[in-house]
Amino acid sequence: MDFAFDATAQDYRERLLAFMDAHVYPNEATYYEQVSQLDDYWAWSRTPILRDLQAKAREQGLWNLFLPGDHGAGLTNLQYAPLAEITGRSPGLAPAVFNCSAPDTGNMEVLAIAGSSDQKERWLQPLLAARIRSGFAMTEPDVASSDATNISTSIVRDGDDYVINGRKWWITGAMNPDCAIFIVMGKTDPSADRHRQQSMILVPRDTPGVEIVRGMQVLGYDDHDHGGHAEMVFRDVRVPASNLIAGEGDGFFIAQARLGPGRIHHCMRSIGMAERAIELMCERVEERVTFGRPLADQGVIREWIARSRIEIEQLRLLTLKAAWLMDTVGVRGAHTEIQAIKIAAPLTVQGILDRAMQAFGAMGLSQDTPLAAMFAGIRTLRLADGPDEVHLSALGKHEVKRQRERRGQAG
Amino acid sequence: MDFAFDATAQDYRERLLAFMDAHVYPNEATYYEQVSQLDDYWAWSRTPILRDLQAKAREQGLWNLFLPGDHGAGLTNLQYAPLAEITGRSPGLAPAVFNCSAPDTGNMEVLAIAGSSDQKERWLQPLLAARIRSGFAMTEPDVASSDATNISTSIVRDGDDYVINGRKWWITGAMNPDCAIFIVMGKTDPSADRHRQQSMILVPRDTPGVEIVRGMQVLGYDDHDHGGHAEMVFRDVRVPASNLIAGEGDGFFIAQARLGPGRIHHCMRSIGMAERAIELMCERVEERVTFGRPLADQGVIREWIARSRIEIEQLRLLTLKAAWLMDTVGVRGAHTEIQAIKIAAPLTVQGILDRAMQAFGAMGLSQDTPLAAMFAGIRTLRLADGPDEVHLSALGKHEVKRQRERRGQAG
Amino acid sequence: MDFAFDATAQDYRERLLAFMDAHVYPNEATYYEQVSQLDDYWAWSRTPILRDLQAKAREQGLWNLFLPGDHGAGLTNLQYAPLAEITGRSPGLAPAVFNCSAPDTGNMEVLAIAGSSDQKERWLQPLLAARIRSGFAMTEPDVASSDATNISTSIVRDGDDYVINGRKWWITGAMNPDCAIFIVMGKTDPSADRHRQQSMILVPRDTPGVEIVRGMQVLGYDDHDHGGHAEMVFRDVRVPASNLIAGEGDGFFIAQARLGPGRIHHCMRSIGMAERAIELMCERVEERVTFGRPLADQGVIREWIARSRIEIEQLRLLTLKAAWLMDTVGVRGAHTEIQAIKIAAPLTVQGILDRAMQAFGAMGLSQDTPLAAMFAGIRTLRLADGPDEVHLSALGKHEVKRQRERRGQAG
Amino acid sequence: MDFAFDATAQDYRERLLAFMDAHVYPNEATYYEQVSQLDDYWAWSRTPILRDLQAKAREQGLWNLFLPGDHGAGLTNLQYAPLAEITGRSPGLAPAVFNCSAPDTGNMEVLAIAGSSDQKERWLQPLLAARIRSGFAMTEPDVASSDATNISTSIVRDGDDYVINGRKWWITGAMNPDCAIFIVMGKTDPSADRHRQQSMILVPRDTPGVEIVRGMQVLGYDDHDHGGHAEMVFRDVRVPASNLIAGEGDGFFIAQARLGPGRIHHCMRSIGMAERAIELMCERVEERVTFGRPLADQGVIREWIARSRIEIEQLRLLTLKAAWLMDTVGVRGAHTEIQAIKIAAPLTVQGILDRAMQAFGAMGLSQDTPLAAMFAGIRTLRLADGPDEVHLSALGKHEVKRQRERRGQAG
Repeated sequence: MDFAFDATAQDYRERLLAFMDAHVYPNEATYYEQVSQLDDYWAWSRTPILRDLQAKAREQGLWNLFLPGDHGAGLTNLQYAPLAEITGRSPGLAPAVFNCSAPDTGNMEVLAIAGSSDQKERWLQPLLAARIRSGFAMTEPDVASSDATNISTSIVRDGDDYVINGRKWWITGAMNPDCAIFIVMGKTDPSADRHRQQSMILVPRDTPGVEIVRGMQVLGYDDHDHGGHAEMVFRDVRVPASNLIAGEGDGFFIAQARLGPGRIHHCMRSIGMAERAIELMCERVEERVTFGRPLADQGVIREWIARSRIEIEQLRLLTLKAAWLMDTVGVRGAHTEIQAIKIAAPLTVQGILDRAMQAFGAMGLSQDTPLAAMFAGIRTLRLADGPDEVHLSALGKHEVKRQRERRGQAG
Repeated sequence: MDFAFDATAQDYRERLLAFMDAHVYPNEATYYEQVSQLDDYWAWSRTPILRDLQAKAREQGLWNLFLPGDHGAGLTNLQYAPLAEITGRSPGLAPAVFNCSAPDTGNMEVLAIAGSSDQKERWLQPLLAARIRSGFAMTEPDVASSDATNISTSIVRDGDDYVINGRKWWITGAMNPDCAIFIVMGKTDPSADRHRQQSMILVPRDTPGVEIVRGMQVLGYDDHDHGGHAEMVFRDVRVPASNLIAGEGDGFFIAQARLGPGRIHHCMRSIGMAERAIELMCERVEERVTFGRPLADQGVIREWIARSRIEIEQLRLLTLKAAWLMDTVGVRGAHTEIQAIKIAAPLTVQGILDRAMQAFGAMGLSQDTPLAAMFAGIRTLRLADGPDEVHLSALGKHEVKRQRERRGQAG
Repeated sequence: MDFAFDATAQDYRERLLAFMDAHVYPNEATYYEQVSQLDDYWAWSRTPILRDLQAKAREQGLWNLFLPGDHGAGLTNLQYAPLAEITGRSPGLAPAVFNCSAPDTGNMEVLAIAGSSDQKERWLQPLLAARIRSGFAMTEPDVASSDATNISTSIVRDGDDYVINGRKWWITGAMNPDCAIFIVMGKTDPSADRHRQQSMILVPRDTPGVEIVRGMQVLGYDDHDHGGHAEMVFRDVRVPASNLIAGEGDGFFIAQARLGPGRIHHCMRSIGMAERAIELMCERVEERVTFGRPLADQGVIREWIARSRIEIEQLRLLTLKAAWLMDTVGVRGAHTEIQAIKIAAPLTVQGILDRAMQAFGAMGLSQDTPLAAMFAGIRTLRLADGPDEVHLSALGKHEVKRQRERRGQAG
Repeated sequence: MDFAFDATAQDYRERLLAFMDAHVYPNEATYYEQVSQLDDYWAWSRTPILRDLQAKAREQGLWNLFLPGDHGAGLTNLQYAPLAEITGRSPGLAPAVFNCSAPDTGNMEVLAIAGSSDQKERWLQPLLAARIRSGFAMTEPDVASSDATNISTSIVRDGDDYVINGRKWWITGAMNPDCAIFIVMGKTDPSADRHRQQSMILVPRDTPGVEIVRGMQVLGYDDHDHGGHAEMVFRDVRVPASNLIAGEGDGFFIAQARLGPGRIHHCMRSIGMAERAIELMCERVEERVTFGRPLADQGVIREWIARSRIEIEQLRLLTLKAAWLMDTVGVRGAHTEIQAIKIAAPLTVQGILDRAMQAFGAMGLSQDTPLAAMFAGIRTLRLADGPDEVHLSALGKHEVKRQRERRGQAG
């Protein structure tokens, strides 16, 4: 057992931290100003500062760090995890600078693993180069998406084509006109086995029948600075059969494989947000004087900070262990730990952000700190990929089963 | 001891509930649509539907219910409390329909109690008729406003005028061009006793030197549908000496007197929001089916609903008791209870809203239910008039003192 | 609506408070010393000091206050509630002094309401005079007692007798040799309707076949100072048919009727314990100095005290409202509120006791304050009459139904 | 970074687990029965079954595992941590079987590190052989022991002797007549620097002036099954000067050094208790049927189990990391992490035990499961070595300072 990062991770961490200090933090304000001046409200990927920083990052080899194998930096989950945490400290800008932002990361992974060589050529290459953006269209408004068998979007074979019909929402990034390609989840065979009904298919944005209905808001934010969250309709959308990813019925398993690393990324970025919140809170409470003393002298404030530190240390270790398990025994072997961090991270970080906002007073809820936007983002994670409750129930059920088996062996 | 509403309160409750059903709920969507189509983004008070509903409410005697004495409906705090709760069920529209929305309510109270007859004529009358709106400029960006002696805005006598200099923020309603008058809190004598330094003065919006800097956001909401929250600068703003409310040095005590009823109103409206959240949640969980059963069959969901009901029943009783104490022994005698509900209400209701949002899934965070906007509004109450922590510390200190005195008597 | 106690309650409160100051608190230590010197470890009711105080209380008319109607003081639930709170401040002694301690109170109520004149003569009269003690034998070790249909004890008619067989536990008071009579719940007709299977029957302690197996412990306490909690076996126990209370099949409904007032009593006594804990905590934190300052100056400690005060005020009001509802609309009409306080009181008071113990340091867990014993007692209330979870689920289900009906009416 | 145990730890784990299954669990009941039949109520160390098991453990090399260096098994903190966890699963018996129970472990460490060769010969050797037991007399009733400068016991040089006067309490194990030696903390020089006033001295039990006053209780438990917690008076107790451990003024630093490993041990044993609680809870909820379904099917129960699993996984990793830091950068370098687990472990495990007890119903509070006794033991840990609040405040203050320094470097 060893709690030190290995040399590769350590080297990347140092370079990434230096890049953050030199280029990301000093340009956060510039980025938001350029976003506010865009011709197209949603086209955040066109801001000059982002383009500049992406070029710099690529030059320095801080590019596609999330992607294992030849297409990316080739890091393990355990090596990438601390880097994801660092990008989470500037969640509105840093992930995009290093081409490591969701949902593109997951989409690139899907294409890298399951895409045909033609699909890779056409869509993975420009994504790896950040020339286009992508969307992942799974969630539907009318059904509980925590239950994959609920999906009602149809993908029907018609000659050499597939025809897609359905309504999706919360399609992150889709309001951005640069979001050129969607991976759409639907059912090719509703009569197949429960987990063989679903397939994934590539749908270019400009395909007839693809309609962007509106942008969804999250606690008042439309998130146009990373492409919003669209409600979309797919109405008789026709694409060539070669747009299917892997085979018919492979959709559920590809989705599952996509989720594992995605959850590590989300959790580590969340931890980065929590760390930044603790930093901001500590600075604030030293500066702010009430009744003649800095807030930092107050026992209640110290407890907030102490609890935040204690919580985040535990959460990070569990997330790193989940990453290590993914690397050593695979997604299936890491199932419980991945589920555990999926539940624990948003709830823990939400609590830390709430304290940090409280320490800032009303300012903490406003546009004058990054805390409120982080809060909204983190709050959604308690619902993304299924609400906490579904995962808690599954994890609890699994533990009961595990203990039963253990007793069986012991007896 | 008797837990039934008296006949007057009961009569008003029934009429108000009927009005809500007939006129408010059915027009919520219309109101928001009209707000979105305004020429002036912030001028919510000009929407035709609001004007219509205000006329209807006034006609039916459901007008200025909050105001004791001759200028208003003449209800006690205990009688008005259940009515405030009802308006809280539609917080974006109902309070304004009945001319019972903050900060106008508090401002009208100040003018009714402490205003000169000229001030009443000029500003109270149009406010009572909802012809204009008003702002209350107390909070300042650079100091902790929970400590009134921190106020740095100056109000300096100069001949027959006062000259005001200072920066304020979180001035609710001030972005609305119809917000014609501000009550500004500042110091007339920084060398006086701690609580005699402050004065309040009336400043018309169009006075030279009054600058609206920007609108503050709350978790992504700019609240333009009730006039936003402005950052303002008062730069050499000159008004006649007769604009002073009461005398020099009376500011702190007027502010204190204003707070008591205001907190009852806020808490009761919060309870109304919680009740609506419970209703929405109950409806949702009966409709939503996952894994073959409605959410309403899940034990976890039932616990959320049960805890919400148990919490809200307790909170309402304490708020009503605080109102009763204000009526029977005055604001000072009700001090602990008022402080208690100021602390308890936002925290309790925030928890209920969080559960309700969770029950709705991602939709609960979006513009498709009123929950997210309520959440943002309630979150600010944990900071308004001083953060929870200041009040908890004061209440705890007071309890220790009370127990010491009791022991002294016993011994 | 009126939050003041009526004249009768107020008069009793003052006399009871005076009695507590004069006779109960000063004799707590004496009582425990006499308990420790008993010949029979469990026979707490034989301590001379208790006998003395009972005589004094009876003389002053502070006797059987809990009992409505002619047999007792004739108070309403709302009038008795604040008196129960006061006795809860000295939970080991005061309830017994005033002959208001469980389970005798509930047993006397059952006999007063449903007992035959013979049963009243034989058992109610000595109980009203505190000459004997009684037990209530419902809970069984092998089944979940939250579900009354689970009861497995049989009561079988045999000629002029009933024969009882079954195992019970947690029979409070039963280890005391003065506990002369048991009300035993069992099934007379397992094939009847779900709620008509159960009956209650009187079983004198000395009946052949009644066996006291052992005393149960609660967090290390055997509670011999109020008769412990026995595990008992009833083996072919034969009693005359006239020992049946009311008719066959009436057991469930009598139990339900017994529970309503009992829960008010338990909750009000719990509130009394919480008040005493707050008092002790406030005294402690003024006396205890760490790092040069009394604990009372620490913000964290003040928050504990403030939260305790805020919680207890809310809880008391809800309990009083439940009592008022029982008086005005009956047990059934007060169902939700009774369930709410049954859930809220133990959890709230447990939290307050935990804080108070923490403020005392290790001493707070020891025999040197009453806090630890209160904690153990309160902890059991989260399980008595069914665990919290069963009640939360029922209350949540009921709320969903109530909202559905409301929507039905509205639509 | 690597989350697998090393070969040594893994080997010990397997042997220890096998020993637990073969010898400890099957003899728990026997042990408690033998304890109940002792001539001397407190002399648990004389039970034959314990002597047997100790001999077996020693034979198998599972002996003094806690002790680094030549005197013990020579394991690192990180290697011993998982073994301490395993012994925590049977907290009343297992630690003693392997001669790894507090306070003897800490006392042996003190002697091994700072004892003279004579002291080692006389006291360490019999302790290593479990022929005697020992006590650690630091806490005093009249002062807050979280502040070491508060200690009022005096150790005064008088010729070739030291004379000790003072009152101590919560001296764990001291009621046991086999507890032959006490390490007493007192002040040799109250005028020295804050942390140089204290010294430690060895006091044999049979020294004149050593008085055992009484046993303290914890939530109703007197803990006679591990020697209780004594209140003691040292009245003119005279011992040879050679009984001083190290030099005058070394007491504070020896105490600090003793605490580090002690906290790891306590936390890991706590985690073992939590694991056993989860096991018991899982078994219980599969067996217990209410309303026709096993409790294990209830969503609320599953959440309890899931949250317990998630919490304990995080807590264990942080504790292991603290152990790793102690091994790699020393106690000082591990300060924050040791403080973090000292705070987190008792609170987390208390919550898990509370859930487990609730799942068992009233039985969970009784002597029929180990849960209630574990609960009492864990509750004390929130106060041992200073209450949570003192540590939270220190940790929070330290974090603020750390962030200030970081900003200083960054700027």
